[in-house]
Amino acid sequence: MDTIPQRIASLRAAMKNAGVDACLVPSSDPHISEYLPKRWQARQWLSGFTGSMGTLIVSADFAGVWADGRYWVQAEQELAGTGVQLMKIDTVASSLHLQWLADTLKPGQTLAVDGDSLGLAAAKALQAALEPRRLNSQAMSSSGLAAAKALQAALEPRSIALRTDIDLIDAIYAGRPALPTAAIYQHDAAYAPESRAAKLARVREAMRAAGAERHFISTLDDIAWLFNLRGADVSYNPVFIAHALVEAGSATLFVAPGKVDAALAAQLAADGVRVSDYAEAKPALSALPGGALLIDPRRVTLGLRQAVADGVQVIEAINPSTLMKSRKSAAEAEHVRRAMEQDGAALAQFFAWFEANVNQARITELTIDEEITAARARRPGFVSPSFGTIAGFNANGALPHYHATPEAHSEIKGDGLLLIDSGGQYLGGTTDITRVLAVGSPSAEQKRDFTLVLKGTMALSMAHFPRGTLSPMLDALARAPLWQHDIDFGHGTGHGVGYFLNVHEGPQSISRAVPEPHMAMQEGMITSIEPGVYRAGQWGVRIENLVLNVASEQNQFGDFLKFETLTLCPIDRRCIDHSLLTRPEIDWLNGYHAEVRARLLPLVDGAARDWLLANTETL
Amino acid sequence: MDTIPQRIASLRAAMKNAGVDACLVPSSDPHISEYLPKRWQARQWLSGFTGSMGTLIVSADFAGVWADGRYWVQAEQELAGTGVQLMKIDTVASSLHLQWLADTLKPGQTLAVDGDSLGLAAAKALQAALEPRRLNSQAMSSSGLAAAKALQAALEPRSIALRTDIDLIDAIYAGRPALPTAAIYQHDAAYAPESRAAKLARVREAMRAAGAERHFISTLDDIAWLFNLRGADVSYNPVFIAHALVEAGSATLFVAPGKVDAALAAQLAADGVRVSDYAEAKPALSALPGGALLIDPRRVTLGLRQAVADGVQVIEAINPSTLMKSRKSAAEAEHVRRAMEQDGAALAQFFAWFEANVNQARITELTIDEEITAARARRPGFVSPSFGTIAGFNANGALPHYHATPEAHSEIKGDGLLLIDSGGQYLGGTTDITRVLAVGSPSAEQKRDFTLVLKGTMALSMAHFPRGTLSPMLDALARAPLWQHDIDFGHGTGHGVGYFLNVHEGPQSISRAVPEPHMAMQEGMITSIEPGVYRAGQWGVRIENLVLNVASEQNQFGDFLKFETLTLCPIDRRCIDHSLLTRPEIDWLNGYHAEVRARLLPLVDGAARDWLLANTETL
Repeated sequence: MDTIPQRIASLRAAMKNAGVDACLVPSSDPHISEYLPKRWQARQWLSGFTGSMGTLIVSADFAGVWADGRYWVQAEQELAGTGVQLMKIDTVASSLHLQWLADTLKPGQTLAVDGDSLGLAAAKALQAALEPRRLNSQAMSSSGLAAAKALQAALEPRSIALRTDIDLIDAIYAGRPALPTAAIYQHDAAYAPESRAAKLARVREAMRAAGAERHFISTLDDIAWLFNLRGADVSYNPVFIAHALVEAGSATLFVAPGKVDAALAAQLAADGVRVSDYAEAKPALSALPGGALLIDPRRVTLGLRQAVADGVQVIEAINPSTLMKSRKSAAEAEHVRRAMEQDGAALAQFFAWFEANVNQARITELTIDEEITAARARRPGFVSPSFGTIAGFNANGALPHYHATPEAHSEIKGDGLLLIDSGGQYLGGTTDITRVLAVGSPSAEQKRDFTLVLKGTMALSMAHFPRGTLSPMLDALARAPLWQHDIDFGHGTGHGVGYFLNVHEGPQSISRAVPEPHMAMQEGMITSIEPGVYRAGQWGVRIENLVLNVASEQNQFGDFLKFETLTLCPIDRRCIDHSLLTRPEIDWLNGYHAEVRARLLPLVDGAARDWLLANTETL
Repeated sequence: MDTIPQRIASLRAAMKNAGVDACLVPSSDPHISEYLPKRWQARQWLSGFTGSMGTLIVSADFAGVWADGRYWVQAEQELAGTGVQLMKIDTVASSLHLQWLADTLKPGQTLAVDGDSLGLAAAKALQAALEPRRLNSQAMSSSGLAAAKALQAALEPRSIALRTDIDLIDAIYAGRPALPTAAIYQHDAAYAPESRAAKLARVREAMRAAGAERHFISTLDDIAWLFNLRGADVSYNPVFIAHALVEAGSATLFVAPGKVDAALAAQLAADGVRVSDYAEAKPALSALPGGALLIDPRRVTLGLRQAVADGVQVIEAINPSTLMKSRKSAAEAEHVRRAMEQDGAALAQFFAWFEANVNQARITELTIDEEITAARARRPGFVSPSFGTIAGFNANGALPHYHATPEAHSEIKGDGLLLIDSGGQYLGGTTDITRVLAVGSPSAEQKRDFTLVLKGTMALSMAHFPRGTLSPMLDALARAPLWQHDIDFGHGTGHGVGYFLNVHEGPQSISRAVPEPHMAMQEGMITSIEPGVYRAGQWGVRIENLVLNVASEQNQFGDFLKFETLTLCPIDRRCIDHSLLTRPEIDWLNGYHAEVRARLLPLVDGAARDWLLANTETL
C-alpha cells in the first residue's frame, strides 16, 4: 500500500467504518506550529502535495487540496494522476473550503477532523461554518433568553455533525514517523538576560491577574522562551516538541523521554520545573482538581481543551508569554544589535564574492543559498538559517515564496534583478533580510519598481505613530508609494520576529487583515518591514529590514512610538531611480548607509571591506 | 413644574409607577437622525444640557449625562445646580454608560428605554451590555445545540431586564413640541437627473436580489433621495419627517397631514406613491400579510422592528438607497462641480471683504458667519447653510466643534490663525469646506502646524488605492505627516457628503474606527478630507476639501481608485512653511491653485477677482 490512491482508499474505508461522510486534514499539529514535524505531515502523506500550507478534504466521491497561488504549479505536478483535485484559493486565510463543506454536506452528515491537531479557535470557525446560515437575520427579541431559544431552534433541524474525537489517519498510516528526538538544551545564559525563574514569576503574576491558578501552554516558542530552553525538532525554528503546565508553585514540561539529560533535569528541578512524558499532557489536564485554568484558544488544540476536567473553570486569553516574549528587553535588543552586525558582515562577505563572480563564473540560485549560509556560518553565535533561503532571479523573483530546487533553478547571468530573502539564527537574535541586486544593467522599469518599494520600506521605517495604531494603518504607509503608481502586493507588510526563536511570531503584525487589539505595536517588539512588487513572469522586488519599536514623544497629542532599524546591509544604489526620491528620503538613505558603514567596518576586511565602502557611499 | 430637578423628580415618579429602576434617554429620534427635531430633544428638556450629543441615565438615586470633551465646559455650566452629573467620555462612540449600567444595575432590575427612539443595532449593543459577562469563556462543545443550551443557562440567572415598550417621558412632558409642519417639495428636476420612478425601480431590483417583497425605510435622507423630495423640518439638512414602505407595485410615504399639497400628491400618485399619515407607519408594519421585509438594523428603531407582524420574515441588510445615494452619478457630479464653483466664488467675495477689513474694522467670529452666509446667499441655487458655521480665532480654533454665540465670541484682531468651517446647500449639491487664514503675522510654529495639516490633506487627496481598501488605511495617509512630528487629532479624517442632502452621510467614512466592508470607497462617493491640529488654548488648524472618488487604473496588481478634488478655494500661502514641502506637494498645490483660478475667475469681479488672482499665484 503506497500510492496516493491507495492511501485515499484506505482513508475512505476507515471513514465508512466510523460512519463519517467527510474528513478534513489541515496543515497543523498539536502545537499550532508553522513548521510541522514529519509525524504531523499527514496531509502531505495522504495527498502527495508537499507544500507547507494546504487543506485536504476527502469524502466518498471527492478528494481535494485547497492551496494558494504560490503552490499551484507545484500542486498540479504533485497531484497529477492521484485523483486528488487542486482547489485554488486566493490567500492562505481563505475560507473557501469551509464554504465547500457547508455547500456540500447535508444536515445529518458527519465531518471528522482530528481534534488533537485542530486549534480551538479554528474549531470554532469550522463549527460556525457548519451551522445553518440564517443566524444573522434572527428575530430580535428583548430578552437574551429568548434569543438563546431562537438560536437553539434554528440549529436543531439543519446541523452537520462534527466529530473531533477520532484520528482516522493514525490507523492507516503504516510507518508514521515518531516524535523527533533531538536533545533540549539551555539557552546560553550569556544571551538570555532574564532567568527562567524570573520569567515564570512574571507569567504567574499574569495568571493571578487573570484569576487563574494554572496555565497550560502548547506553542513551542512560548515554551522555549519561558523556560530558556532551545531544541532542534523542526527546521529553522530552534524549538522542541513539548507542552507545559504552569502552577503557582511548580511547573511541568511534557516532552518525549530522553530529550532532557540529567544535568538539565537537575537545573530545571532547581527552578521548580518537573519533566514528564509528552503523552502525559492530556491525562494531566483531565486530572486537574478544579480551580481556574488559563488557555489561549488560538494556541491550544480542541483535543486538549476537551480533555480539561469538568470541574475546572476555563479562562480563555492570549498566552501571557506570547505578549512578554514579543517585547524584547533592552538587554535582548542590545544582543540583537550585535547579531545584526555579524549578519551584516556575513552579507558583506557574500556580496563581495557575488560581485566578483557574477557574469564571470557560473552562479545559480542554489549557489547563492550555499554561499550565503557559509558566510553566516563563519560568524560567532550563528546556529542555523532562520528559514529556507529564497534566491530568485528575474521571473523567479516574482514568486514571493519561491524556492530553487536541484531539479528547477535558474543561472544568474546577463541583466536583471536578483532577489535574496534569507536569515540566520544567532544565540543573540534572529535575522531576516531581503535585498535585491542589480545583475548587469537593470532596466528603467526595474529601477522604478525598486525605488517605489524602497520608498515604501523607508516610509514605514521613518514613521512615528500613536500607541494603539491599528495594524492596517501602518500597512498603508508602506503601500502608499506603490499605490500612487497603481501597484500593490499580495502579502502582509510585516511579521513579528523572535529572539533566537521563530522567524515568524505574534501577536503583532503589519497587514491589512481586519485588526485586533493584540496586533498593535508595543515598545520592544521586533517586526519586519517588507513591501514588494511582483511582475509575473518578469521580476520581483522586495526590500526587507527588521525594526525595533521604541518610544518617541509623549505630549498633549498622545504617546508616540517609532522604529529603530536593526538590519545592517547596504541597499543597492545601482537600482535607484533618483528622480523618484524626495529630500527626506535621500537623507534617510544616506544616514542609514553611514550607520551601516560605521558598524560593519570593524567586522570585515579585504574584498568585503572594499565592497562595504563602495556600497555605502552618499547618494 | 419647570425646573430640571422637578422634571427629574417627575420622571422618577413615573419610573416607580412602572416598576422601572433606571431610564436611559439617548440623543436619538425615530429616524436615527443627527439633527433632532425639538420634539425628540427629550434629553435636553430633562437634563438642561443642550449639546447635540449626550446620553442621560436616571435612576432612583442618580442622574448623569455622558458627554465627550467638546461639551464639557458647556455641560458643566448647564448642569450646575440641577443634580444631574456630567459623566466625561473620550469619544462620542464611548460605551462607558453601558459599563455603568452593567456595573450598577443588579440582576432582576429593569432598565427602560423608549424603543421608538432607539436604533435596532443600538438596542442589540445595549442588550449585550446587560447580559452576564462570562460568554466569551463559554465551554467549547462540538455541537451548536449544546452551545445554545449553555448560552441559555448562562443567561437565566443573572440578566437585567430591558423594557423598551414604554415612553416614560411623554406623559410628564407638558407642552412637548409637535411634529414639524414645513411643506415637502419636489427636488427641482433640472438638478435631479434620475427620476423617482427610476430610483424606485433600482431599489425594487435590490429588494428582489435580497429576496424581499417589501422594504421599510426610516432614515430621512434615504427617503428624500429615493422620492426626489426635500423639506425643511430640521436645521441644515433639507429633509422632512417621514417613514416609507416600498412594495413591488407601490410605495407609501408616511408623513404628518398637510405636508404634501394636492399637486405634489398627484405627482406622487402618478409614480405609484401613496401618502399616508405619519402615525400609520407602525400599524402598517403590524398589518403586513407575510412575505419577506428588508430593514436596515442601523437605520430603523427597535420599536418599529417589534411592530412587524409575526408571520413576516425579516431580512436585515443595509438600505439599498443608502448605498445608491452615496454613489453620485456622472450627471450629479457635474452639478456638484458647478455648485463648487458658485461656492468658491462666494468664498472669494467673502475673503476679499475680510482681507480689506481685518485689523481695520471690528470683525468678530459672529460677523464671519453673517458675511459668509450672505456671500453664499447671493449665489444661484443656494438654499441654506449646510451646518452651523464654525469660525474660531486662535484658542477658539482649537475646539473642533466650537460655535461662537452672542454671549461668548472673540474679536478677530492682532496676530494669529482664523479657522472657518462652513458649507452650503445648493440645489445641485452640498458643500463643506474648512480654511485657515493668517491674521496679522502668524508665528513659525503656527506655520509649521498649518503646513503639516496641509501635507496630510494633500497626501490623501493625491492618493491612489485599491478598491476595498479599509477605511483606517486611508485615514493613516492623512495622519502620517502629523504623526511624523508626534502630532495627532481626535476626530475622523473624512465623512461622506450628500447631494443637496445631509452634510454627513454614510456608509463610507475615513477614520480609524475598526472597519466594516460597507465603509470602503466606491466610485462616485463624495467624502471630506479634513485632518487637523488642535493646540488647546492656543490655536487650531484644519484644512478640508471634498473629493469625488473616481477610477484610476485596472491592471495585474488590482483595480485602483483615486480622488478628484471638488472644493475650489485657495489655501492661504502666507501660512505655509516652504521648507516642509516636497516637490510633488508643491506641484500639487500649484496645480490646484491654477484650477481654482481658471474655474472661479469667470464668476467673480472687482475685489474678489483681485483677491483670487493674488491668492492663486504659483508657490
